[in-house]
Amino acid sequence: MPKINADRLLSDLRHLRSIGAVENGVVRPAFSEKDMEARHWLKGQYESAGLEASIDGVGNVLGRSKNDGKALLIGSHSDTQPTGGWLDGALGVIYGLEVARALAEDPETRHLAVDAVSLQDEESRFYGCMGSRSLCGEFTAEMEADAQDKDGVRLTDALAAAGLAGVPRERLDPERYVGFLEAHIEQGPQLENDGLKIGVVTSIVGLGGRRFSFHGQQNHAGTTMMAIRKDASAALYALAAAINEEFPKVAGPRSVWTMGRAVIAPGAASIVPGYAELDLQYRDPDTAVLDRFEETAARLVDEINGRGGATVESAPTRVRLAPSHMDEGMRAKIGQAAEANAPGQWTEMPSGAFHDAGVICSTLPAAMLFIPSIGGISHDFAEDSHDNDIVLGCQVLADAAAGILADR
Amino acid sequence: MPKINADRLLSDLRHLRSIGAVENGVVRPAFSEKDMEARHWLKGQYESAGLEASIDGVGNVLGRSKNDGKALLIGSHSDTQPTGGWLDGALGVIYGLEVARALAEDPETRHLAVDAVSLQDEESRFYGCMGSRSLCGEFTAEMEADAQDKDGVRLTDALAAAGLAGVPRERLDPERYVGFLEAHIEQGPQLENDGLKIGVVTSIVGLGGRRFSFHGQQNHAGTTMMAIRKDASAALYALAAAINEEFPKVAGPRSVWTMGRAVIAPGAASIVPGYAELDLQYRDPDTAVLDRFEETAARLVDEINGRGGATVESAPTRVRLAPSHMDEGMRAKIGQAAEANAPGQWTEMPSGAFHDAGVICSTLPAAMLFIPSIGGISHDFAEDSHDNDIVLGCQVLADAAAGILADR
Repeated sequence: MPKINADRLLSDLRHLRSIGAVENGVVRPAFSEKDMEARHWLKGQYESAGLEASIDGVGNVLGRSKNDGKALLIGSHSDTQPTGGWLDGALGVIYGLEVARALAEDPETRHLAVDAVSLQDEESRFYGCMGSRSLCGEFTAEMEADAQDKDGVRLTDALAAAGLAGVPRERLDPERYVGFLEAHIEQGPQLENDGLKIGVVTSIVGLGGRRFSFHGQQNHAGTTMMAIRKDASAALYALAAAINEEFPKVAGPRSVWTMGRAVIAPGAASIVPGYAELDLQYRDPDTAVLDRFEETAARLVDEINGRGGATVESAPTRVRLAPSHMDEGMRAKIGQAAEANAPGQWTEMPSGAFHDAGVICSTLPAAMLFIPSIGGISHDFAEDSHDNDIVLGCQVLADAAAGILADR
Repeated sequence: MPKINADRLLSDLRHLRSIGAVENGVVRPAFSEKDMEARHWLKGQYESAGLEASIDGVGNVLGRSKNDGKALLIGSHSDTQPTGGWLDGALGVIYGLEVARALAEDPETRHLAVDAVSLQDEESRFYGCMGSRSLCGEFTAEMEADAQDKDGVRLTDALAAAGLAGVPRERLDPERYVGFLEAHIEQGPQLENDGLKIGVVTSIVGLGGRRFSFHGQQNHAGTTMMAIRKDASAALYALAAAINEEFPKVAGPRSVWTMGRAVIAPGAASIVPGYAELDLQYRDPDTAVLDRFEETAARLVDEINGRGGATVESAPTRVRLAPSHMDEGMRAKIGQAAEANAPGQWTEMPSGAFHDAGVICSTLPAAMLFIPSIGGISHDFAEDSHDNDIVLGCQVLADAAAGILADR
């Protein structure tokens, strides 16, 4: 089996980390100067690895193998959260590069075709998984025209500033590929807590979101008696607490839900709030559970609106992402490679986070591999993984890639 | 009895409104350029009314009568909320000016001593009721040194910018005064709803406040299972909803409580919040009710902390303001004047809002008069009162002032 070069892998990961490094983290959001610098560096690395490399019109960096036969696409994304960790996305991108190199260096695998990719804007500066959506023909001209970041920067302006206006966009040809492999840090604590080294992803959980808008009457907090108040904040607190009480009754064992954004306006201790907003997000591998969450939220909204105080409107914040299932044949190859390299130290598990593989799986067979996150921490400067886990994960991915391509 | 000049009263109110006017409201926060412009204009008006006028070292404008004998202090504040109404404070200030003029113009009352005042920063840009506190010797050097506005501007710098550095500060001499009279818009809907023209304030409700700080663990909203979360927002929603369920059980008929400020950090739909803050404010005319609110909040905080999720700390946001009672003799004079001018159209009522009279009543006998607010709206550009109510209220105040001074 091909042998990865641990020093080269870690050295390239650290170089990528240095582009946009802030403290222990990385600030390299999609289309920022640092993001484009990283993409141009990756293009050079792909070329040095013998791949035909290009940056397409939405910023995807694609390195194509010159070998004949069906290819395996391996990669992830190199853009980061506004204050991101150094491995989220970057790990899977450098794994793709290293696996392409390792297979090319082994006489037994050098005929196999590995394409490496760094996808763009997985982290939703403009549109979540824009790069993989574009590769799959799912990023429409309308989505592009409407997209702007939270500061109001338009995607079309960001593309022009990045030198990508008019640059052709790649599309994945299902005839070329046997599938897509994405490695990622777990971003949760399960592997570490269970003393495991590799997670083989079974499915990526589905996700829905709603924004609740509360309309009350702003008033003086001293002179407005309780009986006549229409307090937007009181309705928000009541709905949020009720959701946290009722959702467990309809949840599955892997359900999560979060109300991580609440805004109270005008937001002064002495003013009865006239307006408020609450965002609810819920995830589950089972569509039926997502449906039950929707129904429960709708019932609780009706209850609040029946109370005669502030009223609440509910609207979806995004198109619901259906749960997506990873390819069983590719999962089996990853499992075999994990068992060979870390006997008894791997597991199958769903992914609670969304990933580009959840987009690409509609176009190509796709599978994912997780390595442990220290403390389960992610989307934070403190995000990290142990070097030996990073090296092990890449070797497992290389073995799995060789196994998948051997069957093509 | 003295007769006020309705045209002059309304003209001066409108002139004051023009200083800092924005749409139908006024933006004239304490020590802003417009606030100081208004104070210099008032000083001129006081002088034209025959008073000895000065602006003291915290911005109070004081117009002293040159007459002998005990004086009655009449006024309110001319600073506004960041986006304030045109009458809040301004009404009582111009009433003081007009009553001083009306009594001076009437041969039967021209020997009486009316001092007019515009107090500073009632609206808490730097420190609530700073001007009246300073007049009563309750604004300490330490409070002054620590005070800054929400944008981090230091009071000492604002004083210097307003030209007040080193300017002497007035103190109220209890030997000089029979008392303090403050007129104000009601800022609530009770008078309007009951078809009344005058409210004679019995007491100013006491007020307490607490800030709850929630400490959790920030994490990924997809990969962090519910069982291990320490979600600061979930603890906040639970506490706020519990307060709104439990407070009615210990409240009095005039109790109000508000949680008008909540902050969730980092505030993204996809991130389990690691920190949150909630402000609670509660008011009641009865100290025992305020005590019960404190006890209930403490019990609910303990319950949240016993659940094993995010933890909550509770700290007072301010020194509790005890309920303050208006002088019975002065209340009776206002009631007589109200009955004479608007028979059967007045009532006694507590003030749900705090006012400078609640500070000054610890140094001088104090009383307050309310006029109706249209729709009960205040602290808003839409704040307004009918001209005939404004004129009537000033005549009642003038009659009450003459009656109080006749007894000195």
